[in-house]
Parts: sequence; structure tokens; C-alpha cells
Amino acid sequence: MQFNMIKKEQLYEGKAKIIYATEQPEEVVVYFKDDATAFNAQKRGSFADKGEMNNAITVLIYEYLEKQGIPTHFIQKLNEREQLVRKVEIIPIEFVTRNYVAGSMAQRLGLEEGIKCENTVYDICYKKDELGDPLINDDHAVLLGLATYEELIDMYDFTATINDLLIELFDEAGLILADFKIELGITSDNELVLADEISPDTCRLWDKETGEKLDKDRFRRDLGGVSEAYHEVHNRLKKVLESK
Amino acid sequence: MQFNMIKKEQLYEGKAKIIYATEQPEEVVVYFKDDATAFNAQKRGSFADKGEMNNAITVLIYEYLEKQGIPTHFIQKLNEREQLVRKVEIIPIEFVTRNYVAGSMAQRLGLEEGIKCENTVYDICYKKDELGDPLINDDHAVLLGLATYEELIDMYDFTATINDLLIELFDEAGLILADFKIELGITSDNELVLADEISPDTCRLWDKETGEKLDKDRFRRDLGGVSEAYHEVHNRLKKVLESK
Repeated sequence: MQFNMIKKEQLYEGKAKIIYATEQPEEVVVYFKDDATAFNAQKRGSFADKGEMNNAITVLIYEYLEKQGIPTHFIQKLNEREQLVRKVEIIPIEFVTRNYVAGSMAQRLGLEEGIKCENTVYDICYKKDELGDPLINDDHAVLLGLATYEELIDMYDFTATINDLLIELFDEAGLILADFKIELGITSDNELVLADEISPDTCRLWDKETGEKLDKDRFRRDLGGVSEAYHEVHNRLKKVLESK
Repeated sequence: MQFNMIKKEQLYEGKAKIIYATEQPEEVVVYFKDDATAFNAQKRGSFADKGEMNNAITVLIYEYLEKQGIPTHFIQKLNEREQLVRKVEIIPIEFVTRNYVAGSMAQRLGLEEGIKCENTVYDICYKKDELGDPLINDDHAVLLGLATYEELIDMYDFTATINDLLIELFDEAGLILADFKIELGITSDNELVLADEISPDTCRLWDKETGEKLDKDRFRRDLGGVSEAYHEVHNRLKKVLESK
């Protein structure tokens, strides 16, 4: 199969992915790069197999979520670095769900990393590189015209359902889902779907037994073993999902 | 009357005010300083009559709000720089209400200052100097134990009612209330009351006709005429309230 032949012109290049048009106006190809950035692209790097692993992990997770009734943009895996997805209009809001205190929230609130949140915390950030993707609240999102209050309620509900499913899935893989970021899209027939990716780039994943970080924090914090961690997450998820 | 004789030991010194104990355990004296700070105290200054004006303006506004049914901590004016208030436990949340785009929100969202907000924007900030009073959301406030979700709903309602009353009052004084910050307190008998102050230090006030800034932005942005602006706001409010 020469699925990678259907790519046409490049539509968009992001920090970790490139989007290509296809012959089908409603379908695009996502190409996963090995590039890594952190802290609003102030830190840059690249490591082996990152693109392949994020593609493979996202495929496993989106296929699983689809089976659980979550609409996603995913259509099919094309090859090691590419997947075919529905073309969507990305809502310029990052939905961050936090089950444990970590990262920017730990700094913002002066809390110690690793504390379990008694209430699940939903952060929304305005996807705008030149502003540094700032934290916003619902009133800001409405003011900016990103969504209505009613749409935000639906999006938080959608996010919460995905969180429940992912907590359980990662738990079976021996991993704590500390926090994660998703992006949502609207299809041409006005359906809200999960878009972008779910991978160790967008999740904080901690080994249940040892607490070891198996995610992009290994890159952010120069902990080493980045590739190995992504492979480990992939292997564990594959094993869990094959046994289902 | 020697009301200023009842002060006892200093309980707290903030950037613009000092709180003193009195012989009554449930009452404290607020002393208004001439000191001004901005940008999380990175800019410091002092200007004539600021303490007197903020005391006088707060007295006018709190007496007016009390008449309109808003519970406040205010008891009575003692002298030019001091007022007697109920002792409260301050909730460590700044409630910022925005009717127009200005200040930190303009920067955060990349919006032009001066646009009227189609939806009223309520920001909450965590009152914590060492963290720079960061913007937070309801989930953060609950996580930090600052309030419950139910209490936050009550506080937003309370803030919205105050906003409606202040918009009208300032409008009669020929002023647009662009935004303002309030602090809430809990009394020993568990009543939620408006605390702190409402003054040109805590409000953005724009002349309805000319757009001239009559608030602390004159200090923040080195526009000059700071004292004159505070006197102007006081004179206008006094005139409006005397005619009621």
C-alpha cells in the first residue's frame, strides 16, 4: 500500500507535526516529526523515534477512544510517521486536565509537584504562540469569540469523559495520568471531535510503582532516556490493548 | 471627637494601608497611606492626598452601597486618613470585574485597550505576593482551599451586583467604570461582606466625554496629575451623592 502517495501540498507546519492536504478535501495527513520543543519553544531538540512513537501511541489511543464512543478526527494509520485524519477547524483553546499537581500549575499556585488533586482541575489556554498560550477563563474565551458558554460546558464534559477513559487505560498500563492536554476540532458537518494527538508529548505519565516520569518532562528537565520512555509507554499500551 | 485615640497595636501593613487593632476585638482601624505601588510593587511612589482621597472615596462608596443593601465591613469614618471597619478574615482572592478591555487583560489576550466587553469578564487572582497574585480559575481556587464551588457562585453574584451599582453611580458622575478589583471578607458571625477599599487605586475610571484616565493608571503610566485625578473623582462622587 502506498498510502503516503496521497499527500499533496503542505497546509501547516507546527512544532511537532506537519499537516498535508490529500485528494479528499475532507481528509488530511498528519506527519509526526522528531522535533521537540518546550517552554513555548524556548527549548528545542530532537530525538530518535519520537515521531514514530507519538504516531503509534496516538493511533492506539484514538482507536481505543473511538471504540468507547468518543468521536475523534482519526481515520487510519498510513505508515510509521503518518496518519490520515478528518480535516477539522481546530478550536484555539488547549484543554488541560490535571489529576495531579505538576508543571506550570505547581509553579503558578506555589504547590508541590506530585500531590493528587482532590478536585479535577481543568485549565483552558488560548492557543496563540505570540502570547505564550496564556491561561484564560471561560469569560475570556467567550470575549475572544472562541466559544459560547454553552459550548464550553459541552467541551468540559467531553474532556472529563476522555479523562475518565484515559485514567483507566493508563492505570492498566501501570501508569498514572498526572495531566494531559487535548485539542478539539469541528468537522465540516459541525461535529465536535477530539483532534491533535495524545502522546507522552501531551500527557504527564508517571510509573505507578516507581514514580518515574515517562513523558516529555524527560526532555524538558534533561532527565535522559527520552526515546526509551516513549517506547516503554508504547509497549505497555500495546500490551494492554491487545489483551482487551 | 478623638476617634484616632482608639488605635492599638498594628496588625498588618500592606502596600497602601495599615490595619490597627482597637479596644473592640471585632473592630479595626484602616489607615490610608500616600504610598503607591504598581506592577506587583516593582514600581513605587507616593503622592499628595492619596491616602485622604482613597479614604474619602471609599467612605462615600461604601455608605452608598450599604444603603443599596450591600453588606460591607465599613462602620464609620474616623478622620481624614482613617476609618473604623469590622474585623474580617479576608478571602485571599482578588475579584476583578471588567466592563472594558484594559490593563493586564489587554496584554494577556492581545486585545486593544478601550473595547467594551460584550460579556462582563470576571477574573479571580490568588492573593499571594510571592507568586505575583496570579490569575486562577475556579478549580484552582477550590484546589487551594480558598473557597468551595458553591461559595464562588455566591461571590461572583455578589460581585456582579456591586458592579451594576457602581456602573450606575460612576455613570452619574460622568465616569466609565472600565474595571475594578474588590476583596471580600468573612465576619466572625460568618457573614460575607465587601472589605478592603474601592477607589481610583482599585478601579479604572475614564471620563465619559474625553476618555481621560482618572485613576491609578496615571501613576502606572507616568501620565502626571495623579492627585488632581483623585480629587476630581472625589468631587464628582460627592456631588452626585449629595444630590441623591
